[in-house]
Amino acid sequence: MTNPLPRILIEPIIRAALLEDLGHAGDITADAVIPASATTRVAFIARDPGIIAGLDCAALAFALLDPSLILNIHIPDGSAVHPGDTIATIEGNARAIVSAERVALNFLGPLSGIATATNGIAKSIAHTKARITCTRKTTPNLRALQKYAVRCGGGANHRFGLDDAILIKDNHIAIAGGIATAIARARAAAGHLVKIECEVDTLDQLAQALRAGADAILLDNFTLPALREAVALINRTAIAEASGRITPQTAPAIAEAGVDLLSAGWLTHSTTVLDIGLDFLP
Amino acid sequence: MTNPLPRILIEPIIRAALLEDLGHAGDITADAVIPASATTRVAFIARDPGIIAGLDCAALAFALLDPSLILNIHIPDGSAVHPGDTIATIEGNARAIVSAERVALNFLGPLSGIATATNGIAKSIAHTKARITCTRKTTPNLRALQKYAVRCGGGANHRFGLDDAILIKDNHIAIAGGIATAIARARAAAGHLVKIECEVDTLDQLAQALRAGADAILLDNFTLPALREAVALINRTAIAEASGRITPQTAPAIAEAGVDLLSAGWLTHSTTVLDIGLDFLP
Amino acid sequence: MTNPLPRILIEPIIRAALLEDLGHAGDITADAVIPASATTRVAFIARDPGIIAGLDCAALAFALLDPSLILNIHIPDGSAVHPGDTIATIEGNARAIVSAERVALNFLGPLSGIATATNGIAKSIAHTKARITCTRKTTPNLRALQKYAVRCGGGANHRFGLDDAILIKDNHIAIAGGIATAIARARAAAGHLVKIECEVDTLDQLAQALRAGADAILLDNFTLPALREAVALINRTAIAEASGRITPQTAPAIAEAGVDLLSAGWLTHSTTVLDIGLDFLP
Amino acid sequence: MTNPLPRILIEPIIRAALLEDLGHAGDITADAVIPASATTRVAFIARDPGIIAGLDCAALAFALLDPSLILNIHIPDGSAVHPGDTIATIEGNARAIVSAERVALNFLGPLSGIATATNGIAKSIAHTKARITCTRKTTPNLRALQKYAVRCGGGANHRFGLDDAILIKDNHIAIAGGIATAIARARAAAGHLVKIECEVDTLDQLAQALRAGADAILLDNFTLPALREAVALINRTAIAEASGRITPQTAPAIAEAGVDLLSAGWLTHSTTVLDIGLDFLP
Amino acid sequence: MTNPLPRILIEPIIRAALLEDLGHAGDITADAVIPASATTRVAFIARDPGIIAGLDCAALAFALLDPSLILNIHIPDGSAVHPGDTIATIEGNARAIVSAERVALNFLGPLSGIATATNGIAKSIAHTKARITCTRKTTPNLRALQKYAVRCGGGANHRFGLDDAILIKDNHIAIAGGIATAIARARAAAGHLVKIECEVDTLDQLAQALRAGADAILLDNFTLPALREAVALINRTAIAEASGRITPQTAPAIAEAGVDLLSAGWLTHSTTVLDIGLDFLP
Amino acid sequence: MTNPLPRILIEPIIRAALLEDLGHAGDITADAVIPASATTRVAFIARDPGIIAGLDCAALAFALLDPSLILNIHIPDGSAVHPGDTIATIEGNARAIVSAERVALNFLGPLSGIATATNGIAKSIAHTKARITCTRKTTPNLRALQKYAVRCGGGANHRFGLDDAILIKDNHIAIAGGIATAIARARAAAGHLVKIECEVDTLDQLAQALRAGADAILLDNFTLPALREAVALINRTAIAEASGRITPQTAPAIAEAGVDLLSAGWLTHSTTVLDIGLDFLP
Repeated sequence: MTNPLPRILIEPIIRAALLEDLGHAGDITADAVIPASATTRVAFIARDPGIIAGLDCAALAFALLDPSLILNIHIPDGSAVHPGDTIATIEGNARAIVSAERVALNFLGPLSGIATATNGIAKSIAHTKARITCTRKTTPNLRALQKYAVRCGGGANHRFGLDDAILIKDNHIAIAGGIATAIARARAAAGHLVKIECEVDTLDQLAQALRAGADAILLDNFTLPALREAVALINRTAIAEASGRITPQTAPAIAEAGVDLLSAGWLTHSTTVLDIGLDFLP
Repeated sequence: MTNPLPRILIEPIIRAALLEDLGHAGDITADAVIPASATTRVAFIARDPGIIAGLDCAALAFALLDPSLILNIHIPDGSAVHPGDTIATIEGNARAIVSAERVALNFLGPLSGIATATNGIAKSIAHTKARITCTRKTTPNLRALQKYAVRCGGGANHRFGLDDAILIKDNHIAIAGGIATAIARARAAAGHLVKIECEVDTLDQLAQALRAGADAILLDNFTLPALREAVALINRTAIAEASGRITPQTAPAIAEAGVDLLSAGWLTHSTTVLDIGLDFLP
Repeated sequence: MTNPLPRILIEPIIRAALLEDLGHAGDITADAVIPASATTRVAFIARDPGIIAGLDCAALAFALLDPSLILNIHIPDGSAVHPGDTIATIEGNARAIVSAERVALNFLGPLSGIATATNGIAKSIAHTKARITCTRKTTPNLRALQKYAVRCGGGANHRFGLDDAILIKDNHIAIAGGIATAIARARAAAGHLVKIECEVDTLDQLAQALRAGADAILLDNFTLPALREAVALINRTAIAEASGRITPQTAPAIAEAGVDLLSAGWLTHSTTVLDIGLDFLP
Repeated sequence: MTNPLPRILIEPIIRAALLEDLGHAGDITADAVIPASATTRVAFIARDPGIIAGLDCAALAFALLDPSLILNIHIPDGSAVHPGDTIATIEGNARAIVSAERVALNFLGPLSGIATATNGIAKSIAHTKARITCTRKTTPNLRALQKYAVRCGGGANHRFGLDDAILIKDNHIAIAGGIATAIARARAAAGHLVKIECEVDTLDQLAQALRAGADAILLDNFTLPALREAVALINRTAIAEASGRITPQTAPAIAEAGVDLLSAGWLTHSTTVLDIGLDFLP
Repeated sequence: MTNPLPRILIEPIIRAALLEDLGHAGDITADAVIPASATTRVAFIARDPGIIAGLDCAALAFALLDPSLILNIHIPDGSAVHPGDTIATIEGNARAIVSAERVALNFLGPLSGIATATNGIAKSIAHTKARITCTRKTTPNLRALQKYAVRCGGGANHRFGLDDAILIKDNHIAIAGGIATAIARARAAAGHLVKIECEVDTLDQLAQALRAGADAILLDNFTLPALREAVALINRTAIAEASGRITPQTAPAIAEAGVDLLSAGWLTHSTTVLDIGLDFLP
Repeated sequence: MTNPLPRILIEPIIRAALLEDLGHAGDITADAVIPASATTRVAFIARDPGIIAGLDCAALAFALLDPSLILNIHIPDGSAVHPGDTIATIEGNARAIVSAERVALNFLGPLSGIATATNGIAKSIAHTKARITCTRKTTPNLRALQKYAVRCGGGANHRFGLDDAILIKDNHIAIAGGIATAIARARAAAGHLVKIECEVDTLDQLAQALRAGADAILLDNFTLPALREAVALINRTAIAEASGRITPQTAPAIAEAGVDLLSAGWLTHSTTVLDIGLDFLP
């Protein structure tokens, strides 16, 4: 099971999302239409197959609105669901359940969508040593949650921000005046626990990056033959990451070329939600 | 042109997104590799056709990191772009430009994706009186921006939260014990500037809602014949909104059934980014 | 009973108010003078007749400072009190009770003052169909609480902000170049759940606004005869709101003119507190 | 002229008030009705005589919404106005001016109301050595502004919170077991720059408080003869503050009794706004 | 025992410190290495003799990360410890304990260091009437905690900020044009519960300050003979505070000169941590 | 020169520190004593030799309080100063300068103290390949600034939080059941840009950690002979970090043992301020 994020990290996000939805005056529909004392019991039901992520967020949405709601998790984050599966049930004050429903689903659906998409690629390359990883192309202010969803889907995480690893890209190289200079400067400045990755477009650049001692190489948009040649050149002296056009269809061949990682930005910016409904139980 | 959101509304979101990416210590790659005094000039270039939204956010990301950067907008929010078009140029300190790039694109790409998808449907129903609208199925804490992107794409906005209109759904009706009761309670509680919409699944429910005086009707998953019958029944005494399976393919026929609005949750939770790149100019 | 505001909405306000009062170092008087282990029992006692509002806020002030305090509510928000009535009792650590007292009363007194003033007008027009409503002339950052107090007093709420309804005033009309233009522009821009109200100063303007299809009309400072004429002209095709010089004395005649609403800014900016004391029980 | 509050102290309050009013989506009326490029010129005009306070806040409301607005202050905070006086003019983008107007007035009106009421009493006791002062009975989260308004009106400030001075009230005395004990404990705990004031209800209590060395005495609800006797007893060995039923009518006699201060809670919780309008200039 | 600070005051600081350490993704070491269900029991053990301060903060760090942890305090804030003493024990989830450990110690060690240093001076002057006090030379955003640590060590507190007392220094005097003018202006502006202290460098300045009626005098860097002369001159008509070169070595003689207070900035900016370890119990 | 931290990262900290000092009402001394229009010119003067850090913070304190102040930096962060050197001058409104002075110095003094202490060790080991580095034993909520000060002093940075590198300590090893298991679990969980460091107390543990493939080894409290043996054993296959009793006296011998890094917690929790004064210029 995927390690949960600490509540102290996610609570401010969920709280803000509830306040965004409650607006000036709260849920005027529920307040008007549902008696204050009415109780109900609901279930999150999977409509499509996939991997669950964000259930802790959804649960917290209910708990923050009404701590007396009782929530039972049947299928925790990181688990597979099939259509019709009951993911969790919530029981208690009807107004609170109805008011928190949309916010809860706005976390659960998209994060499960990311986990599911990640898992699709992870499964397609399971016969290789390669892993699928995400990028910094994430939804603003939801990166920690989206990277967590990638882990729920069986993916690995790339760096979390501009601060926790050095990734030298084409523009850095151009401004620095070459790969060797760029990596040398990075090495001089980096703390001893900071790794240096260098993006390369050609085998010639690759050779330069290896000579300069990069810890990892980002092979951007290499053809399959070039990728195989690159892996041979790297020869396990650095981590090999392939990026560009990674889909469940293209992934197996790219992974089979011998790289350690496939990275895909679309996992966190262009996936569709996993269809999950909130059904009222009789 | 779409009315821009006030800076005071969007600045906290952009600021938080920059801080999320800068993390503990800022952009350690740019700081190490790029000389402090280096300057550069870059351009946002469209790779795919679409509608721009979020350029104000992207511009603010650069301005918040370095107010001395000079930004020229060529194609403002709400405008169409074609592959190769220069959307905007930025000039100034190279470190600042490189450091803000990803955050800027993390707003611009997804918001333009929403605008583009919205516009696709808007154009497909332009021959009818119907408009395409979004829902509350939005990304947590980005609702105002996503609804703005919908407007950029030519769409209309549904309510912004639980507080600014009454929308009575199936669960409310079930708990309240019927459509008539629910609408009556809503009418009694609502301020005089608050409209009441009621979701119905059948023509019988529709008749009840009309009798109870709903201002708008959400016709959920009606077949085309049922939709036409519903529109006839409503007969302009309430606003008619159709929801369920709205795509550029299905939209024209649904719109031609005579409804006022088509609403689609996927516009704000399952669209792909518009592909926009940041190219360094010579 | 008035629907309470969700705790998640009001807690940040109460918390900030406690921090404002605690300042750098907390309650240095209580810390110095009262033994840490002393306990006490106190009661909120009404000194004047009125309607209670803000008791939830007051209770939260105590709970946020010391969750172990026991609070019993005798007369909840929205209820009438008479001089001498015990509104609530609090029992527990004496320092905490003494330290939270002033903040609690700073919510309870003014909000009950608003509820009481609202109720005074509400009762004076109870024989008509009209309701008393508030405006956006509220205390900065306390609007949700003050509008809640108006509801506690039996009043209705006008719009909550600039975003949840369209209210076209004289200045808008002047800049737009006329009522017809202004309302047409508003209609084109408004979402389908947004109502449009138009302020008018004369019967001629009223006729224009009605022709342009306003949902509601704000009849500003009309004489009683003009008001009656206006109501006849409107003839239930729009909501009729009267504003200007609304007091418990003037309200009945204005309401009897047939309008739907009387709006009064002074309810939220110029009312006096309801006198409530905190008595220590033996 | 009253010393202005630093912008860093008031900006968060004004910013929050704007966001409260802008809500989800900003000023949908101005955006719809007023052309983006329209400009206008407006003036704050006094409708009633009084003392101005809060003009800095009002100015900041405009500046935060649109820094390009040009604001000219004619009558600064702390000055007297007469009906018809132009307090300030604002010129620039019409949408921004219209959108910020209400928030600006929601500061300016009530704060000027406090300044005006304070000034009324201040003038009535100007022939004595006494000053009028406020209390901690302030509007939650606006205390610094309200105390500033009191200064604008010519009043003095009491302590700002629970932390900056010791004020021993009846309940403290009761729990501590007597005035002597309470003051002794306070003296032992207080820093050397912290003054100790003690509330007394009788001349006997006053004698105890003086013996115990209180720096200031709060004479609560004393009759005029008792007040005179108290002042004689104090004989300038402590500061004498009178509280209870302080109005412009009662103030002169109370002040003439020889006290140093009159304190009145209603100045900050039960004053009416000073009537100020925003007129559009031709 | 020192009065604890209210949780509402310190929680935001502890919460922020945890978030600072958890960064993007939480404790990746504990999450990887320690099983989710592992429990443990640890103890804070004193390695050096000293006075404890900050245990409430440390306890809150654990409680905020995992409310189910059980914490037993053996030696509360303000108490003396000897090497080997068990200060507190914590029991529960191993990951949570390990993750919160450093933040807890980052409060406990430095604050106990301040308390210990303060106590060292306090003990050295215990035979005089003088007390040791701190200044505003504190760590940004930790002033309330550091001043609390001074109290834990037996010290007194100087003013908490620029707002709660008037302290006229050499620069104020120079700009104002003299001590008499400066104190007169201060007296005219100060509320009745605000004391005025004046810094003086010479006996002549002291005489001026006393004539002007200062409540307290800051004798800056006076020699011992001059200090004795100053105390005689003051003759209990004002509080006498000595500052400059206050150490455990110099303090007794300075205190014996008869001053009321010794103030030392280094207590809060240049003390070393009290060495406290977190040992895992078998 | 050390790369500055982005203003967006440090501004919230400086702003909070100003608000902490301004408290309820701002600088009541300056407001009372200094005329509003008075201007002055001051200089930060070094009283002791050292390395400057935090001048950007100090400058921002002045700028946030009054953007019109003119600040000239003579000796930037990371540079050496000698007693009497003018570090920077500030010119403008006297009240603003006096009010911001203490906050500015509360950043500048302690951060320069850290830079100076770091530099002392850095110079003492300059003849070796070793670098001095800090730890996570930092002041709560000031870690980024303190790590920056370490860089200003010529030191290197260890990890910034629990999230950006894996550091397996004795407690992790004990709970995991051994070094091999702990490192294996860490490797399986770590992203490809995350390094793994392992703390060891003995040469036997070192051998285990090397076999398990640790990227870096923390040699805790090794004797000099053991340290030399450890360096030989590591033989450049991992980074060697020595910790425990690192002082300017002990550092050279430890560095000469051949380690890559010396880490010292006291740099960030137990250094004294660099003595810097703010002198008023004639």
